Amino acid sequence: MTTPGFAVVPVSGMPMVEPGDDLCAQILDALQRNELNLVNGDVICIAQKVVSKAEGQLIDLNDVTPSQRAIALGEETEKDPRLVELILQESTDILRQRIGVLIVRHKLGMVGAHAGIDQSNVDHEGGEKALLLPKDPDASARNLASAISERLGVSVGIIITDSHNRPWRMGTIGAAIGCAGITVLDDHRGGEDVYGRELKVTLINRADALAAAATLVMGETTEKIPLALIRGLPSENSEQAAADINRPLEEDLFR
Amino acid sequence: MTTPGFAVVPVSGMPMVEPGDDLCAQILDALQRNELNLVNGDVICIAQKVVSKAEGQLIDLNDVTPSQRAIALGEETEKDPRLVELILQESTDILRQRIGVLIVRHKLGMVGAHAGIDQSNVDHEGGEKALLLPKDPDASARNLASAISERLGVSVGIIITDSHNRPWRMGTIGAAIGCAGITVLDDHRGGEDVYGRELKVTLINRADALAAAATLVMGETTEKIPLALIRGLPSENSEQAAADINRPLEEDLFR
Repeated sequence: MTTPGFAVVPVSGMPMVEPGDDLCAQILDALQRNELNLVNGDVICIAQKVVSKAEGQLIDLNDVTPSQRAIALGEETEKDPRLVELILQESTDILRQRIGVLIVRHKLGMVGAHAGIDQSNVDHEGGEKALLLPKDPDASARNLASAISERLGVSVGIIITDSHNRPWRMGTIGAAIGCAGITVLDDHRGGEDVYGRELKVTLINRADALAAAATLVMGETTEKIPLALIRGLPSENSEQAAADINRPLEEDLFR
Repeated sequence: MTTPGFAVVPVSGMPMVEPGDDLCAQILDALQRNELNLVNGDVICIAQKVVSKAEGQLIDLNDVTPSQRAIALGEETEKDPRLVELILQESTDILRQRIGVLIVRHKLGMVGAHAGIDQSNVDHEGGEKALLLPKDPDASARNLASAISERLGVSVGIIITDSHNRPWRMGTIGAAIGCAGITVLDDHRGGEDVYGRELKVTLINRADALAAAATLVMGETTEKIPLALIRGLPSENSEQAAADINRPLEEDLFR
């Protein structure tokens, strides 16, 4: 598909989210305060931090007992062994380790620093809490889309965004870690270019591109504006999930 | 900075670009036909293919004499040795090689497959031509921004986009390979989060995020719609360049 033009709108007014909050109601309230009435095809982008907090993924580091392995790895990387313990629990493989850094494969499949665990903006007491990713962000996105469909009768897309670092390129960029109702990977393989030649390798990651755009308007201190609306896209009702983005290990040309 | 909302608009009507064309005039014509009058802060995103063609970077493979090294590497990877010769000439390091694939560091600094050389959409005779990246895409972007400023008296940003594959994540995404007049990397390091804790690692790649959004509306057969306008951002007049995105080798945590 060729995507028509679209607008990316920051949505202010989300409250500080607490465990157990009705995130759907909070999102709809914020949209309403911004006089944004949802229509079919709208894509709601929400920062991972907010979803994780609502789902109770904020861990008190004082409740974490590091294993021997976490203590050793904490010494090697000069990181808090309790944080290392959480990273190990959240991941399946350690890909790289350096002083201050652990690059791991999260058990959800994505690769990145520290299993997506965040220590900024999570607590006003400073540093004794850590926020894990949502347990199943695709399910979280699907649940939000369903709840909105039930309450308002509109078919919207949901993207749960996170900020990722990348190999070779400086600077973080927003990425999609949970999706519902959008075409995540748009498959042009087997199509033809404008000269009629077969397009061989053309799978477009639409979800990450939309997440990158949305993350820009959220600003970095995403708890201030953890919500953005993308408007102008056609309604897609895709069954694809952000988990589809994870490149199968055997196909990873960069390993 | 927190980016305000913005719109991403595909701009149809670019002609098939030929070597030596006045790309600035063609872009301004296309914008005018779409009744888009440029204002300060607008960001014009243009696909690399079009810039490369206008700059005469289309190479006839029959004019390429492969070196012994290119012939050997072509056999190992089952690739056309003339194309391999161009890849070697355009790059400084081979990072990975597999059947059908060479991941290299381009002499401009970016890492990716085949030194950004494109064989789709470049010729109607099928496969005997290869399109190299612009020789200095940041300079190309600066020249376009200057020419537009001279002709229209407006200060716009320019992003020359390319589609990149990435490690670990499926699907291509638009990236910035040439920039002028925009904040490429937005540095929040040393700032505070909403609880007053220092934000340690917060350098936001705005250029890639905007390129990703723009590339979505271009579609994949980018010669049809190689042009997009991003509107709503403040005028930035930054001196940063896309070359700033290349992560210094010694800082690359993923190597």
